[in-house]
Amino acid sequence: MSNLFLRTLREDPADAEVPSHKLLVRAGYVRRAAPGVYTWLPLGKIVLENVSRVVREEMNAMGGQEVLLPALLPKEYYEASGRWEEYGDTLFRLKDRKGADYLLGPTHEELFTLLVKGEYSSYKDFPVVLYQIQEKFRDEARPRAGILRGREFHMKDAYSFDIDDEGLQESYDKHRAAYIRIFDRLGLEYVIVSATSGAMGGSASEEFLAVAPTGEDTFVRSTGSDYAANVEAVTVPAPEPRSVEGLPEARKHHTPNTATIQTLVDFLNGADLGRDFTEADTLKNVLVKTRAPGTEEWELLAIGLPGDREVDFKRLEAALEPTEVAIVDEADFAANPFLVKGYIGPKALQDNKVRYLVDPRVVTGTAWVTGADEADHHVVDLVAGRDFTPDGTIDVAEVRDGDPSPDGKGTLYTARGIEIGHIFQLGRKYADAFQLDALGPDGKPKRVTMGSYGIGVSRAVASIVEQSHDDKGIVWPREISPADVHVVGTGKGGEVEEALRIGGELEARGLRVLVDDRKAAPGVKFNDAELLGIPTTVIVGRGLKDGLVELRDRASGERSDVPVEEIVERTVAACSQ
Amino acid sequence: MSNLFLRTLREDPADAEVPSHKLLVRAGYVRRAAPGVYTWLPLGKIVLENVSRVVREEMNAMGGQEVLLPALLPKEYYEASGRWEEYGDTLFRLKDRKGADYLLGPTHEELFTLLVKGEYSSYKDFPVVLYQIQEKFRDEARPRAGILRGREFHMKDAYSFDIDDEGLQESYDKHRAAYIRIFDRLGLEYVIVSATSGAMGGSASEEFLAVAPTGEDTFVRSTGSDYAANVEAVTVPAPEPRSVEGLPEARKHHTPNTATIQTLVDFLNGADLGRDFTEADTLKNVLVKTRAPGTEEWELLAIGLPGDREVDFKRLEAALEPTEVAIVDEADFAANPFLVKGYIGPKALQDNKVRYLVDPRVVTGTAWVTGADEADHHVVDLVAGRDFTPDGTIDVAEVRDGDPSPDGKGTLYTARGIEIGHIFQLGRKYADAFQLDALGPDGKPKRVTMGSYGIGVSRAVASIVEQSHDDKGIVWPREISPADVHVVGTGKGGEVEEALRIGGELEARGLRVLVDDRKAAPGVKFNDAELLGIPTTVIVGRGLKDGLVELRDRASGERSDVPVEEIVERTVAACSQ
Repeated sequence: MSNLFLRTLREDPADAEVPSHKLLVRAGYVRRAAPGVYTWLPLGKIVLENVSRVVREEMNAMGGQEVLLPALLPKEYYEASGRWEEYGDTLFRLKDRKGADYLLGPTHEELFTLLVKGEYSSYKDFPVVLYQIQEKFRDEARPRAGILRGREFHMKDAYSFDIDDEGLQESYDKHRAAYIRIFDRLGLEYVIVSATSGAMGGSASEEFLAVAPTGEDTFVRSTGSDYAANVEAVTVPAPEPRSVEGLPEARKHHTPNTATIQTLVDFLNGADLGRDFTEADTLKNVLVKTRAPGTEEWELLAIGLPGDREVDFKRLEAALEPTEVAIVDEADFAANPFLVKGYIGPKALQDNKVRYLVDPRVVTGTAWVTGADEADHHVVDLVAGRDFTPDGTIDVAEVRDGDPSPDGKGTLYTARGIEIGHIFQLGRKYADAFQLDALGPDGKPKRVTMGSYGIGVSRAVASIVEQSHDDKGIVWPREISPADVHVVGTGKGGEVEEALRIGGELEARGLRVLVDDRKAAPGVKFNDAELLGIPTTVIVGRGLKDGLVELRDRASGERSDVPVEEIVERTVAACSQ
Repeated sequence: MSNLFLRTLREDPADAEVPSHKLLVRAGYVRRAAPGVYTWLPLGKIVLENVSRVVREEMNAMGGQEVLLPALLPKEYYEASGRWEEYGDTLFRLKDRKGADYLLGPTHEELFTLLVKGEYSSYKDFPVVLYQIQEKFRDEARPRAGILRGREFHMKDAYSFDIDDEGLQESYDKHRAAYIRIFDRLGLEYVIVSATSGAMGGSASEEFLAVAPTGEDTFVRSTGSDYAANVEAVTVPAPEPRSVEGLPEARKHHTPNTATIQTLVDFLNGADLGRDFTEADTLKNVLVKTRAPGTEEWELLAIGLPGDREVDFKRLEAALEPTEVAIVDEADFAANPFLVKGYIGPKALQDNKVRYLVDPRVVTGTAWVTGADEADHHVVDLVAGRDFTPDGTIDVAEVRDGDPSPDGKGTLYTARGIEIGHIFQLGRKYADAFQLDALGPDGKPKRVTMGSYGIGVSRAVASIVEQSHDDKGIVWPREISPADVHVVGTGKGGEVEEALRIGGELEARGLRVLVDDRKAAPGVKFNDAELLGIPTTVIVGRGLKDGLVELRDRASGERSDVPVEEIVERTVAACSQ
């Protein structure tokens, strides 16, 4: 350490909000070079390399082949795929000296598709999985949290190429298994969440989220199982339909000034109707408008859901995709006078051919209080399947803590995570854009189908720190740590020399060793050791004159005095646990 | 190989001119993604990694510390150093979404200076050597020769920081020694040439040139020693001054129509002057104009050199740097009527205070035929040191094959090379630009002095191929080769299975193995093996039924039949030579 290019900081950097940002800067692993752009200092470079190595080993083990593509890419390929436009401001664009347009690669689907097209032509060539570990560039609107969301960052991107859907599913499953091994080895606590609803055709896309309160992604998990999902992908268990036999008839009531659910419930409970009402007994009809891709026209869509729920717009967008959805405005109400604001009911909607979808909880046989399509009037005991029949169901109500888990075990609660991996069945989007075909056994061309699979390598480093730190500093998992052992020599009676000797012996035993041989006060050295977070520490200090050194475990804080002649064996043992 | 993402090509790529470009593409090591921008395929990635590993090991061994800086860099730092402008069109410039200016790093002097300034403050912190291996970006006007001169390429750039000149010299010497070890391990034949003349203060800058006829750099080497230098750095040995006693007097002659050296020599030899003249007996006076940095005014400069030599403008520029130099035009002659074109002599120059520098061969006591400052007239036997005294010497005449070597051993000849490394004493240019000071032992700030040291990592790969190939393909040095052994199985009688078995055993012995288990004709496999260039090949073919396999050495072409039970030992032995 007397020569190491490392200076730790006592203070958190002014722009840092999350633990990984504070600690990686304070401990001298990274330095900011520009907004969202970081330099990796010597120990940081080792950590980054360690994560990359784990990723590489597991990608190779699952049959991936490593290549390296350029970062500087010609516009034409991204224009062919449509991403030159789609990426918007997030793409770094530039021109060369001849005025030709280039971009800095955000991911490389286009180039990999062309690469495979250039080399392979027969169905016998497939499947193939190619990957690279490389700097990627994205001009994030709000680069934040240090290396958690940077504008230049390290990523492993892999691409699978198969000749049929079954092959793609196999490639996808192999990546999924490899990702589990990778994140397990990185010591991360993570969940795998569907990025899209199961209704869209199985696990076409899943995200690996490192659980962390500082994460940008919200997801729900169950108290009673390992169920976890993106909010968009949660499915509400639909109750069994009930018989409509013997249910009370629907009756219209004069309910003055009850345009909100709360005023309605209060009115009903004050009206002595023979029973108590809650918001969940009311059926709220929310209007939006939608526009299918390629069309100009907006169409009304009504969504009926229990009055205690709001429509989650993110879930709505995901459910309707690729159809666009927008909020209705006064002009829409004016154009459709049958819509009585605050008192919209199923009848006017269906009489006027407005598409009407309901929450899965609105099953046949359920009775509701809902609008009577007339100001200051509601209908009570309007029964689904008897008094109205919706056009279908749509699962877009907000998900709440305490909701039953879709797998029937426990209840849901909201958590936050950092997206560290994403596996995605691309299908034929890029193969279509670049006519990537393979000649089938029948001599006919067959369009190739692809998957793409990313891991945020630099983000994984930050995620590990988010999950593995305390108030004194970082606590590295051994495989990722810049060293196995931190040997600290303190004092002027030969302790530093002894630390160097012990460090040398440990190194000869195959351990990666950092020796603190600096001229600095013991307190400074101890604080730095805890800040740096190397899993095992050996302190060669005051005890040395009695033949004792101290062995510390960074994670547990356990300390024990060890006779100096036993320290090498004891340390080797501690490091192999 | 049945799964390897590799397709070899029979034909050279249309745009390829040099062997490394042809062979690396044909053998499937690289593919072009855009002009001067390449993709590394699986075997190419391994080769690139092998070169990087050698560089990394030697840089670490000499005390360098590896870091990793971003490629995306803010304009402000390069503006502070002046390089934002100086780099001209070679710099890739871009804007982010907020309109801020960025560039893609061509080299990183600025950022390293700031990095050290951010961490270090005391003389005790120094020296330090930092390096990185990273993609660099330069918008070359003519990207050429595949990866020899790309626009996105891999480079190791190192920077040394010292508090005094002696320290810088030490850091420089350590890099020089490390570079020698690196290029020796890469198996390259190279020369180390001074990039600037010794007159400018020793080895302030040296280039490592891989000797190759396809190289872009010209240098001279000696037939009689290992002397090598850039043409700019060659020094002409000055003859001893001679006595002027007893030399014939200078006489003016009427020499009609002799404005060129050849017409003059012909005229003299026809004039019966009692001796024969050659071009080397004439003194040619060449006029240029110069402008010192920071001044507006151009000044005339006359260069006197033997008539059989031309002024080498590159040498002239290097000799005068940082003073600018330009060719004189008609307007300059018109403004200085004492200049009689074709007949300029020392007298008019010196009478009119034109600065007059001569070639080192023009020593006191040498007699010359030169212009008499009058149309159609020359002076014969004008003796240096007697009839004229120049203002000094300037060593800018063209260097020719057969010139004596400056070290007195042998003669010079011209060769071509590829710049694979450059070591450079930067001095305080960047420390001045960014006020990089260290507090000295006296408590006073001391400006830090720097060196920069580059190795073209991807260019080294191409240079190895330039030097190590034959008409059949590449011949890799073992340390750089993508594998130690290429095991080729040919036939349908279990040879492929046996090749796989032998490959497995060799792998278990620690060798890196490529097995050709493809369904392809033997000729295709043999050709590919030679094209790929792995140093040792094992052929499992027809001989197998007699218990024999063949061991081939790619470099020598040697082949021997080996009993199959001995092949593992024999191959291990061959690979450890």
